[in-house]
Amino acid sequence: MSVQDAENKDISEKVDLLESRFALRDLVSDYCHGFDKRDYKRFLSIWWEDCLWDIGPPFGKFNGHEGIQTAIHEVLWPAWKESHHLTTNLRIEFEERDKASAMCDVDCTGLLTGENECTIVNATYYDSFERRDGVWKISKRKVKIHYFNPIPGAVLSSPG
Amino acid sequence: MSVQDAENKDISEKVDLLESRFALRDLVSDYCHGFDKRDYKRFLSIWWEDCLWDIGPPFGKFNGHEGIQTAIHEVLWPAWKESHHLTTNLRIEFEERDKASAMCDVDCTGLLTGENECTIVNATYYDSFERRDGVWKISKRKVKIHYFNPIPGAVLSSPG
Amino acid sequence: MSVQDAENKDISEKVDLLESRFALRDLVSDYCHGFDKRDYKRFLSIWWEDCLWDIGPPFGKFNGHEGIQTAIHEVLWPAWKESHHLTTNLRIEFEERDKASAMCDVDCTGLLTGENECTIVNATYYDSFERRDGVWKISKRKVKIHYFNPIPGAVLSSPG
Repeated sequence: MSVQDAENKDISEKVDLLESRFALRDLVSDYCHGFDKRDYKRFLSIWWEDCLWDIGPPFGKFNGHEGIQTAIHEVLWPAWKESHHLTTNLRIEFEERDKASAMCDVDCTGLLTGENECTIVNATYYDSFERRDGVWKISKRKVKIHYFNPIPGAVLSSPG
Repeated sequence: MSVQDAENKDISEKVDLLESRFALRDLVSDYCHGFDKRDYKRFLSIWWEDCLWDIGPPFGKFNGHEGIQTAIHEVLWPAWKESHHLTTNLRIEFEERDKASAMCDVDCTGLLTGENECTIVNATYYDSFERRDGVWKISKRKVKIHYFNPIPGAVLSSPG
Repeated sequence: MSVQDAENKDISEKVDLLESRFALRDLVSDYCHGFDKRDYKRFLSIWWEDCLWDIGPPFGKFNGHEGIQTAIHEVLWPAWKESHHLTTNLRIEFEERDKASAMCDVDCTGLLTGENECTIVNATYYDSFERRDGVWKISKRKVKIHYFNPIPGAVLSSPG
């Protein structure tokens, strides 16, 4: 390999890594947009078919696309009248070029079904990502909920 | 074109896209910094002259730099004594190399004028961006406010 | 230098800048993860030995790794039973290829020691970064706290 070819290969790999960073960030954002805007297609698209979504107590663990279907349609969307997840502090580590893990934090505000008083949740997501055939998706997300409480008297309503 | 030239062009386009992603992210951040830190120059610099800022009820729609001027100086800054916008979940889609759309979410806390009790706002921004002569700016921002309410009894004050 | 070499140098510098942007973002995220998850090794790793952490009133200024040690172990961790910092709006400006400044905003929720009612904090971080021997770290962080208050009656507790 010529010096020129070696340099190009090096840059090409760096660019690939940068693109992967944005792709992983998009997955984490689509989790929020898909969940909160009730866009199931977007939400499902971030998970590998053999994924694990380990939400922990009081919700439990969900396996594969079938588990996602159950969690969303039978447990979580029925539990929330509206929700607003804001994720940040995304910290990615690449184990290989096609394998990465990350953690990020989330503040969620919203209304539980049947309530009009704000509930606030803070959690950390621990993620494993894999790239298969050029596409990055989540293979595992473990949720650690730090708190899940109402704000007494804080009614939420749209000005519209 | 030689193989070498084609590869360089390819990488060059990828790098351009990555740089664009950061440029768009900066616009979204400067909206918050400009608004909250009352830095009008920074705030205005993110908008194209022929922009549309559609905030919706109860604020309305504002056209062009003249509309921005009115919205900021006659409506919004007079309405807020202090505000703190935190945007996240930025999800960009490129339609062309010089045209993109995005959505992101925001939590805003602050004090309305004449009040000392915290107001909380959550909204989604739907953006259109254009690059003209090498510079990215916002051509349209549509705001969807999910809630806009006080937290009863939560006084905000600086420790300084 | 041939045209080919010049183009490669140009792209190589652009890629370096993009990598630096992610490296700086990681520092800002590790501040939150290190502080909140009480991972002192992670927290310390973001600061240069000759750093300045200027938190302002009521906490003061802290110099170097010794100052970080004091601030964390004698002042801040004892003051907070638990904390959750979410940073966003990171706006970086490069002064040189190895020197950058930035500002970002943070929402922090948590429990002060001995309390079970939520405290909310909002602040802006003004940062100076330097790259030495290929490694980016923080040389100075100035904190401007906008508010620091309890939410009356909002108890925080984990569902676990």
